[in-house]
Amino acid sequence: MKNPENRPWKVLESEYVRRRPWCTVRLERLEMPDGRVVPEYYVMEYPDWVNVVATTHDGRMVLISQYRHGLGETAYEIPAGCIEPADASPLEAARRELREETGYGGGRWRQLCVVAPNPATQNNRTYCFLAEGVEPQGAQQLDATEEIGVHLASREEVLELLAGNRITQALMAAPLWRYFYETRE
Amino acid sequence: MKNPENRPWKVLESEYVRRRPWCTVRLERLEMPDGRVVPEYYVMEYPDWVNVVATTHDGRMVLISQYRHGLGETAYEIPAGCIEPADASPLEAARRELREETGYGGGRWRQLCVVAPNPATQNNRTYCFLAEGVEPQGAQQLDATEEIGVHLASREEVLELLAGNRITQALMAAPLWRYFYETRE
Repeated sequence: MKNPENRPWKVLESEYVRRRPWCTVRLERLEMPDGRVVPEYYVMEYPDWVNVVATTHDGRMVLISQYRHGLGETAYEIPAGCIEPADASPLEAARRELREETGYGGGRWRQLCVVAPNPATQNNRTYCFLAEGVEPQGAQQLDATEEIGVHLASREEVLELLAGNRITQALMAAPLWRYFYETRE
Repeated sequence: MKNPENRPWKVLESEYVRRRPWCTVRLERLEMPDGRVVPEYYVMEYPDWVNVVATTHDGRMVLISQYRHGLGETAYEIPAGCIEPADASPLEAARRELREETGYGGGRWRQLCVVAPNPATQNNRTYCFLAEGVEPQGAQQLDATEEIGVHLASREEVLELLAGNRITQALMAAPLWRYFYETRE
């Protein structure tokens, strides 16, 4: 299918109402192609993010768990994080995050997909990788405000978590379901 | 697998720094279980959202396209929106959004999954539905700032869009990949 016609809205006014780590908010006044004006439109700015569907040589998958204050819950996730200025590429950021959050590394890597947290309200993308055959390579190296559990789960267990809506973060559910579709039996 | 142990962080201070439609931001000072303090944590508050994987009686899928100013692109999506106070349930919100955005209705409905836009930074969930056998029931009924194209696509075309990262919104890619996995051949 051809791409839909792009009809960008025109920015009439733009200002930052907050510029802090994890809260950079741009307020804009926009004009639609037919001349209608949108007086108050907010865009949240973030760096691009990465995550990793990682499997060990014996076919288990590397999950993490951590408390997430937006929903107020501790849940299973896949390793993930921000692309830092020092990362040479999204792939390098993903390798770094897997290593820091779980201690796992090595294996064969490829990009699985690119998704967007919210094309309407956020300016960033998430690059999702598949890492097959990863191995323990040392201890976790956590950031100051991270407390992360590491869990190995079978393919069937991860499918059951997804099916039961227990891996809810959409940026992670999308590449996981894609992985299971592409490796379906 | 058992749920991971929930270790909620304690809220020491909390204030709203902005309360506007599409931009309600809570700034909090938090304490982790081991006593470390997180001085500046932002939560974006939103209503819960819904979306719909809709198929027609002849097996085509109902897509929409619209300009999304966060990424500055017009892309394919599935019908979606907010649960409004007047909606009796997430299901009713999803039926309403499908009808308003595309003119399609009817069919057999069930919940496909529940995902979260971002459990770390947002307080809301997205309820995803499958509607099979929908039919055209009238004209679109769009909000003041909506301009939405309606497209019918085959299963193969939607798989190709997903595989090519052309349906990028993760809240939509997750239920679509789940649908394709659950109906895999």
